[in-house]
Amino acid sequence: MTETSEAPLRIAIAGLGTVGVGVMHLLATNRDLITARAGRGIEVVAVSARERHKDRGVDISTLAWEDDMTTLAEREDVDVVVELVGGSDGPALALSRAALGRGKGLVTANKAMVAHHGLALAEIAEANTAPLKFEAAVAGGIPVVKGLREGTSANQLTKVYGILNGTCNYILSEMEGTGADFDEVLAEAKRLGYAEADPTFDIEGIDAAHKLAILSAIGFGTRIDFDAVHVSGIVQVRAADIAQADALGFVIRLIAEADVQEEGDDRRLLQRVRPCLVARGHPLASVDGATNAVVAEGNFSGRLLFQGAGAGDGPTASAVVADLIDIARSFDSARDIGAPFSIPVARLSDLAPAEPGNRMERTYLRFTVNDRPGVLAEITAAMRDADVSIESLIQQGRAREGGEVLVAMVTHEGPERCVTEALSLLEGSDSLTGAPLVLPILAN
Amino acid sequence: MTETSEAPLRIAIAGLGTVGVGVMHLLATNRDLITARAGRGIEVVAVSARERHKDRGVDISTLAWEDDMTTLAEREDVDVVVELVGGSDGPALALSRAALGRGKGLVTANKAMVAHHGLALAEIAEANTAPLKFEAAVAGGIPVVKGLREGTSANQLTKVYGILNGTCNYILSEMEGTGADFDEVLAEAKRLGYAEADPTFDIEGIDAAHKLAILSAIGFGTRIDFDAVHVSGIVQVRAADIAQADALGFVIRLIAEADVQEEGDDRRLLQRVRPCLVARGHPLASVDGATNAVVAEGNFSGRLLFQGAGAGDGPTASAVVADLIDIARSFDSARDIGAPFSIPVARLSDLAPAEPGNRMERTYLRFTVNDRPGVLAEITAAMRDADVSIESLIQQGRAREGGEVLVAMVTHEGPERCVTEALSLLEGSDSLTGAPLVLPILAN
Repeated sequence: MTETSEAPLRIAIAGLGTVGVGVMHLLATNRDLITARAGRGIEVVAVSARERHKDRGVDISTLAWEDDMTTLAEREDVDVVVELVGGSDGPALALSRAALGRGKGLVTANKAMVAHHGLALAEIAEANTAPLKFEAAVAGGIPVVKGLREGTSANQLTKVYGILNGTCNYILSEMEGTGADFDEVLAEAKRLGYAEADPTFDIEGIDAAHKLAILSAIGFGTRIDFDAVHVSGIVQVRAADIAQADALGFVIRLIAEADVQEEGDDRRLLQRVRPCLVARGHPLASVDGATNAVVAEGNFSGRLLFQGAGAGDGPTASAVVADLIDIARSFDSARDIGAPFSIPVARLSDLAPAEPGNRMERTYLRFTVNDRPGVLAEITAAMRDADVSIESLIQQGRAREGGEVLVAMVTHEGPERCVTEALSLLEGSDSLTGAPLVLPILAN
Repeated sequence: MTETSEAPLRIAIAGLGTVGVGVMHLLATNRDLITARAGRGIEVVAVSARERHKDRGVDISTLAWEDDMTTLAEREDVDVVVELVGGSDGPALALSRAALGRGKGLVTANKAMVAHHGLALAEIAEANTAPLKFEAAVAGGIPVVKGLREGTSANQLTKVYGILNGTCNYILSEMEGTGADFDEVLAEAKRLGYAEADPTFDIEGIDAAHKLAILSAIGFGTRIDFDAVHVSGIVQVRAADIAQADALGFVIRLIAEADVQEEGDDRRLLQRVRPCLVARGHPLASVDGATNAVVAEGNFSGRLLFQGAGAGDGPTASAVVADLIDIARSFDSARDIGAPFSIPVARLSDLAPAEPGNRMERTYLRFTVNDRPGVLAEITAAMRDADVSIESLIQQGRAREGGEVLVAMVTHEGPERCVTEALSLLEGSDSLTGAPLVLPILAN
């Protein structure tokens, strides 16, 4: 059933961690159906990794080995290089440039590299009619790069947003489920493998920002602008915030969000990653654990939701091999499979970053304050002076250690800059025992 | 920004109802970005519809007109025919065959035609290297045909299921929200345009079955087998069932579901459309109104969810034009864009239908019975004799008109055929005032 006369697509894999091994495992397990769908076999011919002799549960003894991974790009017997090394620069980037420069295909799961160098790589790909694909770089096994590049291609998107970091989502939903505080859940997540030993990129929102910058470029047809992403992570979120949010009918999720708005004659792009309060009826509120989800709103499609496993060797391998099948279906010397970012790099627009302060939002504000008279009056006066209208306010009755109490409030909808101004009026006040936490409420 | 030296893709539209007009409106509104993404313009050159002179809100005076739509396929100046006429046979099929037979592309929103004749059309397409695409035939604006054909292509799928009919979902969620009975909500749905004047195909589950048969073929790589779909609609669902389900923690949704299971050495396909009880925590339970959603479970990807507007001129036009952009990107005389069903027709497998009776399920059963002693004993004895184990049972206290009461129960998990047997034991019993309603409980 699966014989085919066409020559197989020959691939080289750089990096044999869990994802690299997962790709080999997938190619072996689903070999027949992949051959049927790709129209030809997909064969691993060469590999490179840090250590050659290590038990990975897959046999690499029959494959060519390169100590220097960049050499994979020079091999005559390789059509496509699969880059699973990671790191925005260094060897991964050198390998990717070399492969595309020689007209070979490149499939990568490297979100940091694509966020920082995606346009430069796409230019090389376009100049050499080489396919460059990175479905696995965003939201693991969810085909959302394809979804935006091809599924919603007829639409002017107004907004793309979602939950793009499984580690943060696991931590927040565990905090919600157990009532435990951040540090405790993070430690548990590390033990269970849901967080890396150094989770900085995840919990500070950088990883989600990499992915958002990639989705923005594809969704809005604009140049990647990772540096313009406003990023705040989840480290400041306390168990008490989650309890307050719950009492108000919300859950807390790290939301990556990009939209395009007209400002005068300009179209401007706003990209942000930050914890938000999400109303319990919203589709993203029920996204728990390491699951990812992306919402895209198009001017004809309306709101579309893509949801699934955001990480893990199986889902990531699924995305890598889907890219390989796409390439196998259409790639030979005479063909290409379109622009990596949907529009050729030279024609991507260059949207200037929008000013977030003009946006209208409802906001959750949490202060930790000294338990003494007059503090509430001081805070509410600052709100009044900055034109922030308070919808509800809760002062936690029970004092915490050291006489510290929590004051949480939700504002009516108003310009963000008013909240910023109110906070600046309170800056330096010795009533506050720490920096206030500001969480926007995700609009429906 | 959007100039391109490539010749435009020239299309003909057959059928100028709301979707046809929606496609023209979309092509005009989003012209620049479509040109940028497609790499060339997409231009309507000819149209055909029942009435030439009718105000549709779009100007067709500059376009060629054909009274006989089949002639569109013969025009030298047409690259792709867009079929929006509907009907599984007749003019739509004749036009589609003619277009593909001449090597022209075909884009269609016609689920009935694809469910019945998709393989025959795909054979013509493959023989003539002509693209055949039908994203708009399933789940409106949700790119789920692409999602299964390309997004999950690396996976052996175990299951594809979802909510594929917006009319039924609107009716069920309205019944849930208002407590009103079926007939009342259907009448309201017709008034609001959520149900057609003749809603038979929708409310009896045929429309969902058409879509399921298409998704099965793509997802499992098997020949379309519409006749093998077990179908039951929502006409029997009463307000009382929705209230009972609610009390038990469930909502009722019309679920289309296909899976492949091993039976001995065989792989067999089971396709069913039926109202199910869906636990409130399940992602499909929160799919309300005319929204559609599809879940695909792959052996590496895990569970993926695609959700969005299942109908309407905007979303459907979005899907049609996405197909056109795909074709414009890759279609010329020397290229093709792969097999319409992901695998060439000759290599699709031919999975025999599975026997549903062997499936293990929990089931909701509702009886309408005469309000007299001994009825409950009769029903529970039949359950016992057929080896059906009862998890919970509710007899509605208040008698309805004519002394009729409702008895509702949920069974423990067991083979479906035991429930069927229990019902056959009760057949002809004069305790029952009507046919019992059997609703499976959707597994998690």
